[in-house]
Amino acid sequence: MVGNSLGTLFKIISFGESHGEVIGVIIDGCPAGLKIDADLIQKELNRRRPGQTALSTPRSEEDKVKILSGIFNNFTTGAPICLIIENKDVDSSKYEKIKNILRPSHADFSRLMRYGEFADYRGGGRFSGRITAGFVMAGAIAKQILSLKNIEIIAYAREIGGIIDDKEYDFKKIKILRDKSDVGVLDSDNSQKIIELIFQMKEEKNSVGGIVKCILDNFPAGIGNPIFNNLQSDISKAIFSIPAVKGIEFGAGFKAARMKGSEHNDPWIIKDGKIKTSKNDAGGIIGGISTGMPIEFNVCFKPTASISKSQKTIDIKLMEETELIIEGRHDPCIVPRAIPVIEAMTAVVLLDHLLMAQKIPLVLEEK
Amino acid sequence: MVGNSLGTLFKIISFGESHGEVIGVIIDGCPAGLKIDADLIQKELNRRRPGQTALSTPRSEEDKVKILSGIFNNFTTGAPICLIIENKDVDSSKYEKIKNILRPSHADFSRLMRYGEFADYRGGGRFSGRITAGFVMAGAIAKQILSLKNIEIIAYAREIGGIIDDKEYDFKKIKILRDKSDVGVLDSDNSQKIIELIFQMKEEKNSVGGIVKCILDNFPAGIGNPIFNNLQSDISKAIFSIPAVKGIEFGAGFKAARMKGSEHNDPWIIKDGKIKTSKNDAGGIIGGISTGMPIEFNVCFKPTASISKSQKTIDIKLMEETELIIEGRHDPCIVPRAIPVIEAMTAVVLLDHLLMAQKIPLVLEEK
Amino acid sequence: MVGNSLGTLFKIISFGESHGEVIGVIIDGCPAGLKIDADLIQKELNRRRPGQTALSTPRSEEDKVKILSGIFNNFTTGAPICLIIENKDVDSSKYEKIKNILRPSHADFSRLMRYGEFADYRGGGRFSGRITAGFVMAGAIAKQILSLKNIEIIAYAREIGGIIDDKEYDFKKIKILRDKSDVGVLDSDNSQKIIELIFQMKEEKNSVGGIVKCILDNFPAGIGNPIFNNLQSDISKAIFSIPAVKGIEFGAGFKAARMKGSEHNDPWIIKDGKIKTSKNDAGGIIGGISTGMPIEFNVCFKPTASISKSQKTIDIKLMEETELIIEGRHDPCIVPRAIPVIEAMTAVVLLDHLLMAQKIPLVLEEK
Amino acid sequence: MVGNSLGTLFKIISFGESHGEVIGVIIDGCPAGLKIDADLIQKELNRRRPGQTALSTPRSEEDKVKILSGIFNNFTTGAPICLIIENKDVDSSKYEKIKNILRPSHADFSRLMRYGEFADYRGGGRFSGRITAGFVMAGAIAKQILSLKNIEIIAYAREIGGIIDDKEYDFKKIKILRDKSDVGVLDSDNSQKIIELIFQMKEEKNSVGGIVKCILDNFPAGIGNPIFNNLQSDISKAIFSIPAVKGIEFGAGFKAARMKGSEHNDPWIIKDGKIKTSKNDAGGIIGGISTGMPIEFNVCFKPTASISKSQKTIDIKLMEETELIIEGRHDPCIVPRAIPVIEAMTAVVLLDHLLMAQKIPLVLEEK
Repeated sequence: MVGNSLGTLFKIISFGESHGEVIGVIIDGCPAGLKIDADLIQKELNRRRPGQTALSTPRSEEDKVKILSGIFNNFTTGAPICLIIENKDVDSSKYEKIKNILRPSHADFSRLMRYGEFADYRGGGRFSGRITAGFVMAGAIAKQILSLKNIEIIAYAREIGGIIDDKEYDFKKIKILRDKSDVGVLDSDNSQKIIELIFQMKEEKNSVGGIVKCILDNFPAGIGNPIFNNLQSDISKAIFSIPAVKGIEFGAGFKAARMKGSEHNDPWIIKDGKIKTSKNDAGGIIGGISTGMPIEFNVCFKPTASISKSQKTIDIKLMEETELIIEGRHDPCIVPRAIPVIEAMTAVVLLDHLLMAQKIPLVLEEK
Repeated sequence: MVGNSLGTLFKIISFGESHGEVIGVIIDGCPAGLKIDADLIQKELNRRRPGQTALSTPRSEEDKVKILSGIFNNFTTGAPICLIIENKDVDSSKYEKIKNILRPSHADFSRLMRYGEFADYRGGGRFSGRITAGFVMAGAIAKQILSLKNIEIIAYAREIGGIIDDKEYDFKKIKILRDKSDVGVLDSDNSQKIIELIFQMKEEKNSVGGIVKCILDNFPAGIGNPIFNNLQSDISKAIFSIPAVKGIEFGAGFKAARMKGSEHNDPWIIKDGKIKTSKNDAGGIIGGISTGMPIEFNVCFKPTASISKSQKTIDIKLMEETELIIEGRHDPCIVPRAIPVIEAMTAVVLLDHLLMAQKIPLVLEEK
Repeated sequence: MVGNSLGTLFKIISFGESHGEVIGVIIDGCPAGLKIDADLIQKELNRRRPGQTALSTPRSEEDKVKILSGIFNNFTTGAPICLIIENKDVDSSKYEKIKNILRPSHADFSRLMRYGEFADYRGGGRFSGRITAGFVMAGAIAKQILSLKNIEIIAYAREIGGIIDDKEYDFKKIKILRDKSDVGVLDSDNSQKIIELIFQMKEEKNSVGGIVKCILDNFPAGIGNPIFNNLQSDISKAIFSIPAVKGIEFGAGFKAARMKGSEHNDPWIIKDGKIKTSKNDAGGIIGGISTGMPIEFNVCFKPTASISKSQKTIDIKLMEETELIIEGRHDPCIVPRAIPVIEAMTAVVLLDHLLMAQKIPLVLEEK
Repeated sequence: MVGNSLGTLFKIISFGESHGEVIGVIIDGCPAGLKIDADLIQKELNRRRPGQTALSTPRSEEDKVKILSGIFNNFTTGAPICLIIENKDVDSSKYEKIKNILRPSHADFSRLMRYGEFADYRGGGRFSGRITAGFVMAGAIAKQILSLKNIEIIAYAREIGGIIDDKEYDFKKIKILRDKSDVGVLDSDNSQKIIELIFQMKEEKNSVGGIVKCILDNFPAGIGNPIFNNLQSDISKAIFSIPAVKGIEFGAGFKAARMKGSEHNDPWIIKDGKIKTSKNDAGGIIGGISTGMPIEFNVCFKPTASISKSQKTIDIKLMEETELIIEGRHDPCIVPRAIPVIEAMTAVVLLDHLLMAQKIPLVLEEK
């Protein structure tokens, strides 16, 4: 408890603030003997790094991963792994100015009621999306372990600013299609439309949200600890730790509410000698335990709260109404940069469950 | 961990099986000095008790709460409270017959892959909706404590089988309207239509799902432990422990994905000297911490997996395809009976957070 | 947290009060597929059952184990196992009379300061040694699983009332010798002297304490999670949950403080092709991790606090000094009955660690 | 779980290795609004810093605390506090040479069986006493909070190498006496004898252990969460995380085993209108809950395992017996440097319990 730890046998601890010294993460419980490919960590970090295209915040951070502990001779040791990135392109002046003005749909008021005036408000402090860089570093390591079991996690934008792509794609093609798009969508026409929309939002000083879909392939059946540590519960808990998430649904999700049992139920079949379902409206999880079918879920992101449009709000020192124009640097749409974060948190949670299910050894193969 | 415990300072432990001796719950960490109104526990249990109307399963259980520990002279003592109900109207014969046939969208296969052949499959065993009776008993006690702080939790059916009610209601009227309806919806016309639909489903040997909305009034601002134990994370984790839940969304939820920042952002205002927002698309939680506005979320239930229609599936002993007609007793729609369960889990989670925030003392007022 | 749960993957939850309905325990995380020998549970319970010899309290309880959940067709299912015994020979009148008099070295004052006047004080309530019956039931199941790995735990009284036996015994003989003695010591002369001493204490209305030694044979090397969940930490935490324990020491223990490094250090040797130490002053644990040598520790019990001799104390209602003669039924020495409790808690903790180390599967062999 | 986290509401996470980049600690759950006196942290670190007198290891480390997160404008923010010291005077050559030789009573074999060949063995890696620098940093902050409640923790050496001081001292004088001694004992004659003994050990290439006593003054009554999170359990768990600890006893401790109930029981008295006991053989904890009397316990340290005397052991690569002379830098007696570590871990555990008992607010007084 107390908020900054997640997991049981593969546990991550998040620390750092947007405009503090560092953003960091500790992994406690990483199996020993994983050859650490620091480039892979960096590659994941780069996927969510700001300032890479004109679409995102102009804050320019190198976000270079630095390993403080837990790795020896390029292998994990079983000891806690501490990973940090430094905050370099910090400009807190804009935040100083509006420190008493509540930014609409930001955590300013929540934070004051929880921590008093002591919290670091600069750049959003602990509430900044920047803390998810720590999630991504931990996830990069989790993904390397999952890949030893051929488990692959892929997320992509399914919908941004109302531009929707609900086509079905072959799992093997998703990664290729997504990586072609600057906004992480699969259809190239949509990609273009969305890019234009985001530029338009930037110009209009507004923002948009969207939906990210996440799919896991090759995840084994029989994983999950009902009742309370079932897979849906633990995935959703981790995903809601990502700033701006407002909803999650598994498989058919909210559409299931409008289906009949005879439509929604997934018939069991035998395919290539294996037990499968002929469709996957359950999203790969029944009774909180994996079925061996792909795990699939959608995550909804609200539009970026920081907009440069004038907004009505209040000054809490003066206790009077005022107008606010947020000047800081921000993304008109954070969905594309959230994609690797969703993958990371999913990897962290599911690796923890695989360790509890004894599907991953505590000491990986000797070199 | 290991699945059957939830919470930090107000912790519940679930036990019991659908056709075992009992369904039970332990509450560890209940403040001492709460006058226990056993009638209130029973009243909540009765709300989810089967066999009350022709709409639900014919299984007839008295579900009478029995207190095994933790209460002395009608007050909680601070020691673990153990509450049970006995399983009486048990008929396991139907389950014996189909024990090797995978029921579509049931946890049969998940369970086998997780627990081998040892799990109690009768009546769904640990995967039965009946285990939520334990949630309701714990929630009844949590609600009594929350009511000392004037916090009220109300859930109702917003949509069943595609019949939707998205009108806004005054909080004070919701309970009255809901309690008038046999299916827990607020609009009486809808209520009638839904009742007819459920009877039709029964006749068609089919089932429907729906959406439950939950609202909390008077919940204080500043509660929640970001990053990982934020309110959205902890509520969603608890809610996904309820069988048949496939999605959750807070505030505007999935609709937020199609809104612009300027539309979605909730402007801060001063009203009667208090800091509020003029609307509540955030659903009362920003940055994972309560804002003092009503906490609002929607929960999606899939249609009951047990249907008496013939379904395609497989026999796992013979490893061959077969047809299945499920004969057991079940609800064509579990949404109405799930309403008190949603309230209960919400109460349990939020009381835990209020205790962590030191808003509830460990020893309540002396008698 | 909140006190009544212990463990990570094999978790026990304690409930019940001395004069309440029941004493109980829930085991969450027990592997599926263990054939439950209820007789073995009963046999362990009988070892700590009161009223068996003239040496212990005259309270006469059958202490018959009743299984409420988690067992199906005589095998564990993987679901939470709830075990209870009923309290039958309850006489609370003596406690009513002295309810405002603080019994010296009892938890009366601690309890009042923690729980106010709400706690169940009858027979010591939650602070009674009787709650350890729950520990013993959980331990009986843990021991059955450990025995599948040929791990054996044996505790015995090494010292009672100053009568000391510090001879070394062959592990294989300890159980036989101990079971011959009514007070759980190995030397028959000492046994007789101690029995006489305890009868003398009874007559003198006084009590004595003692030291229990616990040894584990065949416990594998490499188990333990430093830094904080090392074996010494987790064993000591569990052992201090047993009422009246005031000290624990591993291996040479406090004697190590007076040894030189050259004396205390255990030389590594190769014996029968295996890596061992030539002596075991470390008590089988170095760096918090098992070495493969027998795990050995001593536990110190204070003399029973309840004595029928007149004692000086205070009446907290009147806030004045008074004399107290405790009339209830109690043991002049609880050490013999504590022996199975030590074994039980040790079994529970070490099974949890073996599960974390993936040395015990989650589903045991198919029948 | 997984070993490197401790606590519930005030949680510490330990990381770093003896010869790695850093030794660090994260504090999760520190109340907001504590004015951080970095000098106080440094002062505590200096107490356990190596190389300060000729009595300790010649390893010379500045051990300068560096704050990476959680502090803003000199106040704690409520966010995780990450504190590190850098490892500078690292000489791993000696360890490389003996990497296949098991050092007697060191964790070499335990480590290999737990982590395979992957663990960082240099300077003991995670098993080095150096990791306790992290404990001390966390403890320094915990102590600052406890001091706001006038709770003072003082530990001192009661016995080193068989030179014993069992006199009773007035609490107020202990700190002054202890700080006069280079080895942390209270009696100046003993201090001189112990210093001579340690120099003699150095010359003899041998080592000695000892006993540290810890006392808490002004700790309130009513703190502790029986059964499993009682104060004795949680203190002992934390203390056994300190390398070289082999025993702990509260109050009269092991001596209680040889006392009669009439001797051991602490009579309750009224003194200055307050409820106290006339003596304190319980060590301030009964039933696992504080009584308001000073909390007192003794901790036993084995002699330093690293000695430069020739020792018999084995080479695990060659699987043959050999002789070993350990050349690294080490303390002939670690007891003096362990004193601040005992205080630190005690502070961490008890602050956690005070937070659970709602005796410390989550946001301290506004500046």
